[in-house]
Amino acid sequence: MTRYALLIEYDGRGFVGWQRQVNGISVQQVLEAAAARLNGGAPVAAIAAGRTDAGVHAAGQTALIVLPGDLPPNRVREALNFHMKPHAVVVLQAAIPPDDWNPRFSATRRRYRYLILNRRARPALHEGFVWHVPNPLDTAAMAEGARHLVGHHDFTSFRASSCQAKSPIRTLDHLEIRRDGETIIVEVGARSFLHHQVRNIVGTLKLVGEGSWPAARVATALAARSRAAGGPTAPPDGLCFMHVGYDPDIF
Amino acid sequence: MTRYALLIEYDGRGFVGWQRQVNGISVQQVLEAAAARLNGGAPVAAIAAGRTDAGVHAAGQTALIVLPGDLPPNRVREALNFHMKPHAVVVLQAAIPPDDWNPRFSATRRRYRYLILNRRARPALHEGFVWHVPNPLDTAAMAEGARHLVGHHDFTSFRASSCQAKSPIRTLDHLEIRRDGETIIVEVGARSFLHHQVRNIVGTLKLVGEGSWPAARVATALAARSRAAGGPTAPPDGLCFMHVGYDPDIF
Repeated sequence: MTRYALLIEYDGRGFVGWQRQVNGISVQQVLEAAAARLNGGAPVAAIAAGRTDAGVHAAGQTALIVLPGDLPPNRVREALNFHMKPHAVVVLQAAIPPDDWNPRFSATRRRYRYLILNRRARPALHEGFVWHVPNPLDTAAMAEGARHLVGHHDFTSFRASSCQAKSPIRTLDHLEIRRDGETIIVEVGARSFLHHQVRNIVGTLKLVGEGSWPAARVATALAARSRAAGGPTAPPDGLCFMHVGYDPDIF
Repeated sequence: MTRYALLIEYDGRGFVGWQRQVNGISVQQVLEAAAARLNGGAPVAAIAAGRTDAGVHAAGQTALIVLPGDLPPNRVREALNFHMKPHAVVVLQAAIPPDDWNPRFSATRRRYRYLILNRRARPALHEGFVWHVPNPLDTAAMAEGARHLVGHHDFTSFRASSCQAKSPIRTLDHLEIRRDGETIIVEVGARSFLHHQVRNIVGTLKLVGEGSWPAARVATALAARSRAAGGPTAPPDGLCFMHVGYDPDIF
């Protein structure tokens, strides 16, 4: 048996998310079905670094699968990509990780990017990959609000009420807001995230950007330690799971 | 009657191109149908700066329509966008141009961008917006080949045999090749282009990038003034009509 670390890209539209669900097709299901083809048809389990929600994209998800024999990693990548056609999931790289490597628990940093299309007209070119906010957002105010969230905090106000993590405490390493023309780019990095944490942060900063909230209210919301104090959840479309870091690097 | 200049974005997938065709839906048809709704149902003709091919995208196409009355440009933009739903076409801006303005003939510069995804795995996130080339391309060699094409030349070797332009002579103002990770970005600018000119140039530079052609053969192909001497036509997916310039600016 050989353990393979996979670097995976997918278009979240049309999937119910990473994890298997009864109500639709998941990324995990597509990957596991392709892996089973390399296992004589017997089931193969895939473990991922993060369970992205329905509609959320990935440019750098990572996963672990175990296959019989000792196929070279590049052969495994090519074979999985062949069998995953025409689904919008591809393995970018495959590698043989250290014996104790776990895609989820070995991760030392994760990075997400959220895109807001901030203009009157709805998206034609980027439909499904951005949150369309027609009214002008003040990115300087959003950045001011964001500063209150960076660091080691209890993020109860920004996690889904259904979040199953034992602790609501996380360390946000960075949270950057920048504008590139009509697009506002939010870059978020942490060792790990709570369920809906990025989307709840973005939904809250949007309130600051449109002037509904003063930037300081972000600090008040954080201190309240209550989901009711945080802003709404931004839609999944704008979110992309960009990178998972390991020490040492796997790929 | 009021003349409106429109700045238009569209996703070329699913369209037979800008121009009306009998075999499918065109961008022109979607725009003209929406404009007719603002004209009591009577037909409205739209003239564009460039007739993009099937599958080619636009971030900055321009067009002219004439409507009765004197609706403010922003009202026209909003009304057209409302009526064009759910097609992947939107008016980004509307403006009232000078009386003698023509979107095609008044243009002083046009800019196209072509994206090549240069990696083993097929695209999952950017399907339909890139040309997938699995084998490594040498962008320095491509840039060397490109230098032979910049300037005032007879581009017979790089225009579609069906091209209806009277003269094959054009001035290519710039042709830049750069790499951003797995993506190769080709930026091309000229006052005007011949039919398939950008795609034929990209298809040729790909031969140079993969090593099938020495860079100098691009000069030989250009000098031959024969379509048979040029490289193949790159697929439409990677091409986006970025910008049309006017003096003075309209938008």
